[in-house]
Amino acid sequence: MNAPIPTHLLPRLQPRPMPPAMLEALKARFADRCSTALAVREQHGRDESPIDAPPPEAVVFCESTEDVAEVVKLADRYEVPVIPFGVGSSLEGHLLAVQGGVSLDLGRMNRILSVHPEDLTVTVQAGVTRNQLNNEIRHTGLFFPIDPGADASIGGMSATRASGTNAVRYGTMRENVLGLTVVTARGEVIHTGTRARKSAAGYDLTRLFVGSEGTLGVMTEITLRIYPIPEAISAAVCGFPSIDAAVRTTIQLIQLGVPIARCELLDRHAVVAVNRHDKLSLPESPMLLMEFHGSPTGVQEQATTVQEIAREHGGEHFQWATTPEERTKLWSARHRAYFAGLQMKPGSRTVTTDTCVPISRLAEAVTAASEAAEAAGLMHYIVGHVGDGNFHLAYLVDPNVPEERATAEQLNEELVRRAQSMDGTCTGEHGIGLHKMDFLANETGTGSVDVMRTLKRALDPKNILNPGKIFAL
Amino acid sequence: MNAPIPTHLLPRLQPRPMPPAMLEALKARFADRCSTALAVREQHGRDESPIDAPPPEAVVFCESTEDVAEVVKLADRYEVPVIPFGVGSSLEGHLLAVQGGVSLDLGRMNRILSVHPEDLTVTVQAGVTRNQLNNEIRHTGLFFPIDPGADASIGGMSATRASGTNAVRYGTMRENVLGLTVVTARGEVIHTGTRARKSAAGYDLTRLFVGSEGTLGVMTEITLRIYPIPEAISAAVCGFPSIDAAVRTTIQLIQLGVPIARCELLDRHAVVAVNRHDKLSLPESPMLLMEFHGSPTGVQEQATTVQEIAREHGGEHFQWATTPEERTKLWSARHRAYFAGLQMKPGSRTVTTDTCVPISRLAEAVTAASEAAEAAGLMHYIVGHVGDGNFHLAYLVDPNVPEERATAEQLNEELVRRAQSMDGTCTGEHGIGLHKMDFLANETGTGSVDVMRTLKRALDPKNILNPGKIFAL
Repeated sequence: MNAPIPTHLLPRLQPRPMPPAMLEALKARFADRCSTALAVREQHGRDESPIDAPPPEAVVFCESTEDVAEVVKLADRYEVPVIPFGVGSSLEGHLLAVQGGVSLDLGRMNRILSVHPEDLTVTVQAGVTRNQLNNEIRHTGLFFPIDPGADASIGGMSATRASGTNAVRYGTMRENVLGLTVVTARGEVIHTGTRARKSAAGYDLTRLFVGSEGTLGVMTEITLRIYPIPEAISAAVCGFPSIDAAVRTTIQLIQLGVPIARCELLDRHAVVAVNRHDKLSLPESPMLLMEFHGSPTGVQEQATTVQEIAREHGGEHFQWATTPEERTKLWSARHRAYFAGLQMKPGSRTVTTDTCVPISRLAEAVTAASEAAEAAGLMHYIVGHVGDGNFHLAYLVDPNVPEERATAEQLNEELVRRAQSMDGTCTGEHGIGLHKMDFLANETGTGSVDVMRTLKRALDPKNILNPGKIFAL
Repeated sequence: MNAPIPTHLLPRLQPRPMPPAMLEALKARFADRCSTALAVREQHGRDESPIDAPPPEAVVFCESTEDVAEVVKLADRYEVPVIPFGVGSSLEGHLLAVQGGVSLDLGRMNRILSVHPEDLTVTVQAGVTRNQLNNEIRHTGLFFPIDPGADASIGGMSATRASGTNAVRYGTMRENVLGLTVVTARGEVIHTGTRARKSAAGYDLTRLFVGSEGTLGVMTEITLRIYPIPEAISAAVCGFPSIDAAVRTTIQLIQLGVPIARCELLDRHAVVAVNRHDKLSLPESPMLLMEFHGSPTGVQEQATTVQEIAREHGGEHFQWATTPEERTKLWSARHRAYFAGLQMKPGSRTVTTDTCVPISRLAEAVTAASEAAEAAGLMHYIVGHVGDGNFHLAYLVDPNVPEERATAEQLNEELVRRAQSMDGTCTGEHGIGLHKMDFLANETGTGSVDVMRTLKRALDPKNILNPGKIFAL
């Protein structure tokens, strides 16, 4: 069912076979926790991207930072790639073993190491997922706001600099990781950051590792900011006559400084998919799905402002979700949009875009993308964290029809170039991985990518940490 | 009047004399804009730290990124240090030419290059100061919140990862720099980031350069986030029976998630100094100076909550500053606390501390620091961005009495160790510079400092960019 690796990515396939001595050493050290079973390797050799590649040669199930360090020391000795693996929900081919090697499964590193409710910080192992974290700290009255669609691991979210629906108010992983434990390419364990809210102590290694997609070090423990659950929360949906009207409402909210917590766009296709998948009856027009956090008065005030602005842009059918159950239903539906979309075209795979533009250009960017997809006749839907200027156009392609994939890639490329010409980025939150490598230099210039290469060579001279990703060395 | 360089810093003095050919090349290229006059060099060879060192050998007044690139290319060729200079307000010896070389004065690079009010972004040259920026964008209804005490340059603020009184709500330079133009150690010009609010495109070079204190590259242009001036602003002062009571009030506010915009502590000594210097009549007890931003209702609501919490901790004499003039008077006084303090002891210099701790440990940290300073009988005062867990204890030392300086350094060291034992940092916003180098390894561990060294060697192999700072190579 999977599509073959696209031709233009074939040069990335540079297998570096693992010496038998390394596998023996892994088996000796980890016994059953080192697997070479094909099914296990295949499960660890793919992600949610539409790209396929041969699986890693082995999978090691790590249970501690020391386990990770030992695998990396062996990898250093034998010059074998290691690829950290959380839950496998990355979208751009981050996890693909394009140069072979070992998948480091961190899923068993799922302990919450310390909660400091009085400091609004928590320290977790990298394999803890975002839902697990929120379930385990709920009794403290605090929550962790970053929520990519999938129930991703905190390690994976840190590695891709993830964000989600709450970023407009709470920031992304960039703003919410305070410190890290990292295994370096030589298998040494280092610590970055502190539990203080800010620091000017030397280079910002925390921010360097966050978003480095496993290519500079393996993050094993992560200290995060957490937040008081707001006194009042209110969610609403509002339909609009056009995508443009919905986005212009958002732009005005942001420009006015309304402290909205979530502001999500769903185009008509996305609403139809979500209605069908989650048995909802949302009005099937472009829609904003919003949430307000604060005191009861503050929330009421924000809601009033938003309704006024929405009305000016033709917004109607304002529906409020005031009980926690109603809210959960709405947001769960939003988070399942990816799967809802896939079900619109059984057997399809998704080619997802992730551009983010300065807010004033958003209406233009979304409308152009939507029109191009309609004109191409390719099934698609749009969801977007529009409060950040970030949106996802997902093309549903039949893996058995190569033309569909080619069209999707072509549309994605046009969409990215458009965003970059607007001072925007090819990826707001998914990362570069394998799939967006060709876009990076156009965005930051070759000088900047050269600096990234220099950093990579300095910190990973043998190129063993998730090699072949972000940029070609 | 200045104190000699302390004995323990003498090994940092490693002059690398400039070859005559380099000076000739600078003169040929920059004519009058390259100065070797002693007065000019001395002005560029010091900052607000209590440390003295021989001045740089030349000062070049740069007017463009190209000027900077040309100086750095010559420095690369002749292996001569270059030290970027904004307004000279750094506090930890960042600007001292401990290895000789050229001071790159960026003060003439003071143009605002573009303002995008609709996107809430602005791009400035590095020499623009924070007050200049706010004056020039005021007509747009937007402002840039980061406000260290001095009217520092945006370049200098980026280089030290500065923050100030608004950080509790708006973040620090870390959160507010979106992109950079940087001259690398080879004199190449690169760009980082975009004008989009978030990005997952490759390594976070922006955050790597922010806080690198001129040691990895010279930032020449900076794109910043700016914010709508709040609809309503209200400021208040409140006196407390003890430092402990004031800090506990703060802790509770933060833990409750009250979105306070500024929350500053002044101890009794600081209030006395500010009263005298600015002809105010604030009650001379430990004091919180607060500001609330939002809608009129939101501000009123925050104020009510704060008054209730303050009262529980014995807070009294709540005074409101509601007009812009009253607010400006209060905050200007707060920003001049450094100079007000110096006037308490004419001829003195300041040894300033800058620890930042997890919020729950703040009362303990501030009280212990205050008691130790009282016990040592050294004149001092405390001001603090307590909403962040960050505070400054400033010791006033007579440069002619070496024992005072030694006592201050001893107290500072104890205070730093205490903060670090609480999972805090030796510097919340001033940076490491020369003065805090010995504290860094204790905070992050030698492994982490080794990674910083590796990055420095990779990006600046000839060690020409502000050498001898942050860590010994």
